[in-house]
Amino acid sequence: MKVQISPFDDCLHEECGVFGVFGDSEATYLTALGLHALQHRGQEAAGIAANDGKKFHIHKRPGLVGQAFGVKNDSPKLQINGTSAIGHVRYSTAGGNSDYEIQPFLTHCHLGEIALAHNGNLTNADVLRKELLAEGQTFQSTSDTEAILQMMANSRSQSPVEALLKCTPRLEGAYALVVLGPNELIGARDPSGVRPLVLGKLDDIYMLASETCAFDQINAEYVRDIEPGEVVCISEDGVQSYSMETHKPERFCIFEYVYFMRPNSEFQDRSIAELRENMGAELAKESPVEADMVIPVPDSGIHAAIGFAEESKIPYKHAILRSHYTGRTFIEPTQQRRDFGVRMKLSVSKRDVKGKRVVLVDDSVVRGTTMPKIVHMMRDAGAKEIHIRIPSPTITHSCFYGVDTPDRDELTANHFSIEEMAKEFGADSLAFISNDGLYRAIGFDKRDGENRKYCDACFTGDYPIELTDFEAGNASRGCGKRKESAA
Amino acid sequence: MKVQISPFDDCLHEECGVFGVFGDSEATYLTALGLHALQHRGQEAAGIAANDGKKFHIHKRPGLVGQAFGVKNDSPKLQINGTSAIGHVRYSTAGGNSDYEIQPFLTHCHLGEIALAHNGNLTNADVLRKELLAEGQTFQSTSDTEAILQMMANSRSQSPVEALLKCTPRLEGAYALVVLGPNELIGARDPSGVRPLVLGKLDDIYMLASETCAFDQINAEYVRDIEPGEVVCISEDGVQSYSMETHKPERFCIFEYVYFMRPNSEFQDRSIAELRENMGAELAKESPVEADMVIPVPDSGIHAAIGFAEESKIPYKHAILRSHYTGRTFIEPTQQRRDFGVRMKLSVSKRDVKGKRVVLVDDSVVRGTTMPKIVHMMRDAGAKEIHIRIPSPTITHSCFYGVDTPDRDELTANHFSIEEMAKEFGADSLAFISNDGLYRAIGFDKRDGENRKYCDACFTGDYPIELTDFEAGNASRGCGKRKESAA
Amino acid sequence: MKVQISPFDDCLHEECGVFGVFGDSEATYLTALGLHALQHRGQEAAGIAANDGKKFHIHKRPGLVGQAFGVKNDSPKLQINGTSAIGHVRYSTAGGNSDYEIQPFLTHCHLGEIALAHNGNLTNADVLRKELLAEGQTFQSTSDTEAILQMMANSRSQSPVEALLKCTPRLEGAYALVVLGPNELIGARDPSGVRPLVLGKLDDIYMLASETCAFDQINAEYVRDIEPGEVVCISEDGVQSYSMETHKPERFCIFEYVYFMRPNSEFQDRSIAELRENMGAELAKESPVEADMVIPVPDSGIHAAIGFAEESKIPYKHAILRSHYTGRTFIEPTQQRRDFGVRMKLSVSKRDVKGKRVVLVDDSVVRGTTMPKIVHMMRDAGAKEIHIRIPSPTITHSCFYGVDTPDRDELTANHFSIEEMAKEFGADSLAFISNDGLYRAIGFDKRDGENRKYCDACFTGDYPIELTDFEAGNASRGCGKRKESAA
Amino acid sequence: MKVQISPFDDCLHEECGVFGVFGDSEATYLTALGLHALQHRGQEAAGIAANDGKKFHIHKRPGLVGQAFGVKNDSPKLQINGTSAIGHVRYSTAGGNSDYEIQPFLTHCHLGEIALAHNGNLTNADVLRKELLAEGQTFQSTSDTEAILQMMANSRSQSPVEALLKCTPRLEGAYALVVLGPNELIGARDPSGVRPLVLGKLDDIYMLASETCAFDQINAEYVRDIEPGEVVCISEDGVQSYSMETHKPERFCIFEYVYFMRPNSEFQDRSIAELRENMGAELAKESPVEADMVIPVPDSGIHAAIGFAEESKIPYKHAILRSHYTGRTFIEPTQQRRDFGVRMKLSVSKRDVKGKRVVLVDDSVVRGTTMPKIVHMMRDAGAKEIHIRIPSPTITHSCFYGVDTPDRDELTANHFSIEEMAKEFGADSLAFISNDGLYRAIGFDKRDGENRKYCDACFTGDYPIELTDFEAGNASRGCGKRKESAA
Repeated sequence: MKVQISPFDDCLHEECGVFGVFGDSEATYLTALGLHALQHRGQEAAGIAANDGKKFHIHKRPGLVGQAFGVKNDSPKLQINGTSAIGHVRYSTAGGNSDYEIQPFLTHCHLGEIALAHNGNLTNADVLRKELLAEGQTFQSTSDTEAILQMMANSRSQSPVEALLKCTPRLEGAYALVVLGPNELIGARDPSGVRPLVLGKLDDIYMLASETCAFDQINAEYVRDIEPGEVVCISEDGVQSYSMETHKPERFCIFEYVYFMRPNSEFQDRSIAELRENMGAELAKESPVEADMVIPVPDSGIHAAIGFAEESKIPYKHAILRSHYTGRTFIEPTQQRRDFGVRMKLSVSKRDVKGKRVVLVDDSVVRGTTMPKIVHMMRDAGAKEIHIRIPSPTITHSCFYGVDTPDRDELTANHFSIEEMAKEFGADSLAFISNDGLYRAIGFDKRDGENRKYCDACFTGDYPIELTDFEAGNASRGCGKRKESAA
Repeated sequence: MKVQISPFDDCLHEECGVFGVFGDSEATYLTALGLHALQHRGQEAAGIAANDGKKFHIHKRPGLVGQAFGVKNDSPKLQINGTSAIGHVRYSTAGGNSDYEIQPFLTHCHLGEIALAHNGNLTNADVLRKELLAEGQTFQSTSDTEAILQMMANSRSQSPVEALLKCTPRLEGAYALVVLGPNELIGARDPSGVRPLVLGKLDDIYMLASETCAFDQINAEYVRDIEPGEVVCISEDGVQSYSMETHKPERFCIFEYVYFMRPNSEFQDRSIAELRENMGAELAKESPVEADMVIPVPDSGIHAAIGFAEESKIPYKHAILRSHYTGRTFIEPTQQRRDFGVRMKLSVSKRDVKGKRVVLVDDSVVRGTTMPKIVHMMRDAGAKEIHIRIPSPTITHSCFYGVDTPDRDELTANHFSIEEMAKEFGADSLAFISNDGLYRAIGFDKRDGENRKYCDACFTGDYPIELTDFEAGNASRGCGKRKESAA
Repeated sequence: MKVQISPFDDCLHEECGVFGVFGDSEATYLTALGLHALQHRGQEAAGIAANDGKKFHIHKRPGLVGQAFGVKNDSPKLQINGTSAIGHVRYSTAGGNSDYEIQPFLTHCHLGEIALAHNGNLTNADVLRKELLAEGQTFQSTSDTEAILQMMANSRSQSPVEALLKCTPRLEGAYALVVLGPNELIGARDPSGVRPLVLGKLDDIYMLASETCAFDQINAEYVRDIEPGEVVCISEDGVQSYSMETHKPERFCIFEYVYFMRPNSEFQDRSIAELRENMGAELAKESPVEADMVIPVPDSGIHAAIGFAEESKIPYKHAILRSHYTGRTFIEPTQQRRDFGVRMKLSVSKRDVKGKRVVLVDDSVVRGTTMPKIVHMMRDAGAKEIHIRIPSPTITHSCFYGVDTPDRDELTANHFSIEEMAKEFGADSLAFISNDGLYRAIGFDKRDGENRKYCDACFTGDYPIELTDFEAGNASRGCGKRKESAA
Repeated sequence: MKVQISPFDDCLHEECGVFGVFGDSEATYLTALGLHALQHRGQEAAGIAANDGKKFHIHKRPGLVGQAFGVKNDSPKLQINGTSAIGHVRYSTAGGNSDYEIQPFLTHCHLGEIALAHNGNLTNADVLRKELLAEGQTFQSTSDTEAILQMMANSRSQSPVEALLKCTPRLEGAYALVVLGPNELIGARDPSGVRPLVLGKLDDIYMLASETCAFDQINAEYVRDIEPGEVVCISEDGVQSYSMETHKPERFCIFEYVYFMRPNSEFQDRSIAELRENMGAELAKESPVEADMVIPVPDSGIHAAIGFAEESKIPYKHAILRSHYTGRTFIEPTQQRRDFGVRMKLSVSKRDVKGKRVVLVDDSVVRGTTMPKIVHMMRDAGAKEIHIRIPSPTITHSCFYGVDTPDRDELTANHFSIEEMAKEFGADSLAFISNDGLYRAIGFDKRDGENRKYCDACFTGDYPIELTDFEAGNASRGCGKRKESAA
């Protein structure tokens, strides 16, 4: 079983965010700022590769963007410069040789220097790797991402975009890519469009990002989404669009809407904040309750809680506070006192909840390890009734497309009924939104299995893309990170 | 003019938080946790002094509690141990010899080893220091706090509590103190009770803290407030209470209610969260406006915004998001792009505010440097009307009792009328709560000048305690930190 | 012009030392110790790659071995473990992406994981790289060394030793290699045998090193030299020896004897310490002088000075002292005081030299920048006459085989006659050993141009191995480091 | 038993070196350079206090001078500036609160700011401390040195020099002091003159140092020794000399000549290098032996070995080499291999000693822990006979005057006869210089007990200064560091 990185961490983790910009003297600053805005998509490592017109530079480090790129002595200088750049934040890195696993990856090949950053997961990485090794190619990491670079190097193509288009028919799985070549910035989304990628513009400068919040950070304009199966090439000639050879039905990850994306991002012509208020409102309709106040677990429960409060006419209260100070946790003194960990992150306004019936809204439940601690803290504060409402369906299956889900047997919804969970959590009632309710919040009548437009495999087990490695017993589930012990 | 420590920082800063615990094998862990909960009272340095029964240990460092006490290599061990301990967080430290200025201060004297931590500011520190030097005493720092220790050493008293009581008639200004002696933990509040100090209990163990949120952190119980002019001595004989010789009218700092204290703290039998909702509601009554939504500047504007929304029946929206990731700021690239700094901290959910009339609620306005950037960001997002409502009166005077206020000529309210400020900020309207409104929110009919119970000098210039050093031209305004150029 | 790394640094720099050990539970400790003993061959970076039987680990860092592998908190644990390991120390690393340039290099290829460390320089690296890129191979660094790995990966061979033997006919230049494969440790010397490599044994464990001093460090036994053009493969089956296809006349680097090797090392059945005493004695015969004492510039001049003193019957005095403390240099205050730099490293026992005629023995003269400072310091101390004797011929040509020589126009011997140099240095006389004298010290009658057994190109310009890249205008002169501006 | 800081460390340690300079814009650079030259007197911590004319600055850190003052990012700037400065290097610091124990000490008192650095040890520090505490004075450290500062603060004197002169009659023990006042630099040596202090000059600027090697470092001139019982005050009025009230017979520490001082220093009109050659020559007369070569243990045995070789006509060989690379030691893998530690520091030129009869010269023997390892290493290298000659008498007593000697029962000479020691060390013979021989080397006929001019208590137990604290059972033996368990 995997070690949790914080005392308060029972959520799924997006494994990556990407950013790229072409042709600006401050390209690496813009990239660092963009990555900062995408930090919620990956907190364990950050990297930037830049092309200064003559050569490539790369800087990557464990930690947050500010730690990886902020400099000592208060000098506001980045350690890396260039006129085009790509960047990557990631949630987790594998073991010992970690620097080699941090993206972007950079290589020298017949096309010159090429750097690549990847959000997603290839489901046939193991097969590809074996083929490439047999052909004399070499790898520096264990990551699936490097296979794409080696295929490009081995393609004998005349340009990076040609090389990438030549590779894509062989790639299975989910990928939103940014590629930096000697004279271009390339973006690509897999044919199912599982992971997001958007095009932006600041003055004349084009850029790519996982989410529009990265454009807002630098006051850039959101132009459009990159389409499933589309490759865009940004160069001195502007933006050119190519279609991959392979076509598949669209399956954007619905959990991006439920939890991953920032509320202020937009995608598919929708506001994420608004979608989450809708989810809260749907939940209030599906599972109403009499209570004195609606309280979000901040910050991820806030929008759904506001939607729930508006729909139910129950007053909204900000009675759980989140601390902005963490730093290194220095505790875990003795067993009996260990709820201190949750209390370092969250605290309850006792006088507000004392004797009250409260609706508690949190984004999702994965292992179910944190909720009992929060309920316990609310009881200590004197809450009379506690009704938990979760604007996400129950999570029952692992993700193979770039999200770090625990093994299936760690998912609490695979062990307990909802009633049993309520009891485990110490709550007076518990409800999750239904799958149909979720689709209603997005604007559909209900979930249409055949024509559902979204990947909802974590809620349904309905995997839209082939799981080649997994079926051969060699599955990794996110940037080549880890073998699955059970699915 | 002083350097602002972050691109988004236009608030007053409390200069200190204190914590103490007597007689627990995990005393230093509890102190570190308590300081973490008090981190909002001071972010620039943290220190703990501990007595292990044989000798004292001290550990103090610049930075947050987690940085100062968290250890490398992921070992969850504190670098300091003891069975009784006091701790301190502070907002700022003076220049070069900074380690000497970080509290607690520790000294060896005829009473044995004594450590002391101080929240507040002595207004006659300069006079005291000169007297002590003439008597042969020595100082390690430039802090007013050290004068208290030197007076205690020079007192020839038989015990630390006797020594402290002997000193207090000579001390002018504001002080909430925790003192660690060979066999005791002492707490004291000045006769006017300007700064808060509360007594708590965990099982049989007594503790002291600036606010009750520190007790919640470690699941301890809030027993009572320490009274103005009270000295408590916690030892193996329990808690003993002493009265200072000097008596003065009570004058608790009202800005603690407006901004400094954590919403989940309690003091004087009141919930801070509730007080702030009251302030928002009073403001809605005093300065109503027609609008589509009420939006707080998070997190400090949240409770007042909820109060405003409830009173005005205008929907509450969480359309400004605060980033939890900061790290070192690595930017400030070029002049024309510098709003990036605010955007690293705050972002707007564009689709939610587009074309809307919004009420923006922020806690207070000091220099007025940040508000124009937020308004500008809202306009970029398409807001049609922006009405700013501030649940604090205008700040017009410097604090000499332990708050880091700018010089008077940096306070925007001393330069502009409210209408002019609205224009400067780019807002359609602007209103501050009145002084009477503020007192109403706390439960009074209005501000009663003679019997007002609170220090509100920053709003009124009505200073309740003599300003001896300042009137002699030697004023420091907070832990001996800085001479005032104008008041 | 290149920045000198220390105020006292006018010597040539060996670019690498290598070490390898097969089949010991403390393999990485032995490697770290061996590298420490080889530290004189490279001080700027150190790395170890280890095979723990299941996977490879790598740890490499700028700095000395103790800095790269010593751990904080006084724990005597290495950060890397394995049962077989190779290691590398290097003199210099190229620019920005420096971690990628530090050796060993590790790659995943069809043979499994392979690591390689290299002492020397390929003279056709540029040609090889271009060929490999055209075939789809990729590079992580700009180093010539990586070409060997890519050739091995591209060889389609069945084993690492077969792959290496298949590559060697294409390699030009100087190389002493250690290669770690899944089941073997391989060592190789180029057909001319320019760089040294020796075989050692500790109990049943075989090991390879650049010099025997690494074996003494760990109390291992020196078995024999690896022969020019020999490949040895150490595995569970013991040591197996292979011959490269290509044969060339032997040309061991004579400067290894003059300066690079540690005095306590042995090679070709000779003691280095004794060879250097012989050089001093030959020099005393060739260029005698009347004087009161012979003083070495410590430590590199010591053995030649003892030889000179014994031959000339002039008393040996240790009147120049070397400081063992350096740390970071914190100076360079003002121009007129800058000899402080040399004085931080060397100091003169003034009372001993006052009024005396001294013979000063230093190992070699490269740019001639330090000698004037030493002479000046001796004059300040009151020396009456100063006669410099150098047990190395004048250096007039760049090295292309793995030594970091300055460009030819920085070599003082290309600008001045010996008389002019004496004047520049402020000496009363100056003499260098002759080329014939040097060969006599090694045991020959004189230098025999045709059958000379050694590479002495830096003294003679007589390059024994083709300079393919250089002649094509693409020369690098040491691990792909740097283009030559003039030769 | 105390932990040895390095695998090769069986010597006594001087506890301090001091330096001071008055009236130079580069005062702190000169002080850092001077401390670097005095680094052999203390390697564990370094500090500088400087007066910039307005206020004092202080910077002190564990580690070597280069580490304490060298700055990151290769900027050659010191972190401290001023026009007058004092500095201190020390061998060891006490436990946890270490920063408080590092010198110089700085205090604010009625005389203004005063800083003080001390080489030596007060033998009545405990008595003084108790008196001062009773009078209301406070201490920051446990150091004896701070008592001097507190006495000066408590003196009510009109100037620092008057304050110091007023204190000295109460001080017992050994002290060479540098004191920095608002307008002056003061130097003082105790009436017995146990520790050295010398006056130097660079252009018009006067300076003080423990040894003349500090003046050579910065090309300054050695003016004269400070006399026992003398106080010099350097100010804008030049150098003024004062005599202490107390007079005592002169007793300079003879071990300074034997081991502590740098060979290139001068004192009492003598060259240290020459004295050590004399000691080697005396030893050759007292304990001659037939052998093939004389080998020093470098570097401390070099001068005595040269003297021995010259007197005995046996060839001098540099067959033991010292490594210049240490860094952090990363070893101590397993018990049976632990001589690796000595081999990291020293290595033997095997071919030179094989089959030879060698005289091994080392400076002194304290615990006798290293010598067996060196002899063992020589035997491994094939030496036929090993004759150890030590140019120091046997050490049998602890020092109370500022040298870190082990407790008496750790001194090997208190447990074994010389014959037994030879056997323990594995040597064929062993001889120490006699006490008379040592005095002869310095220029006397023999040791004259009454009129001996030197403190030789470590060889004889003849303590020249009262041991007040020790006799009361409270002895510390060097900067208040450590209680003596047995004498």
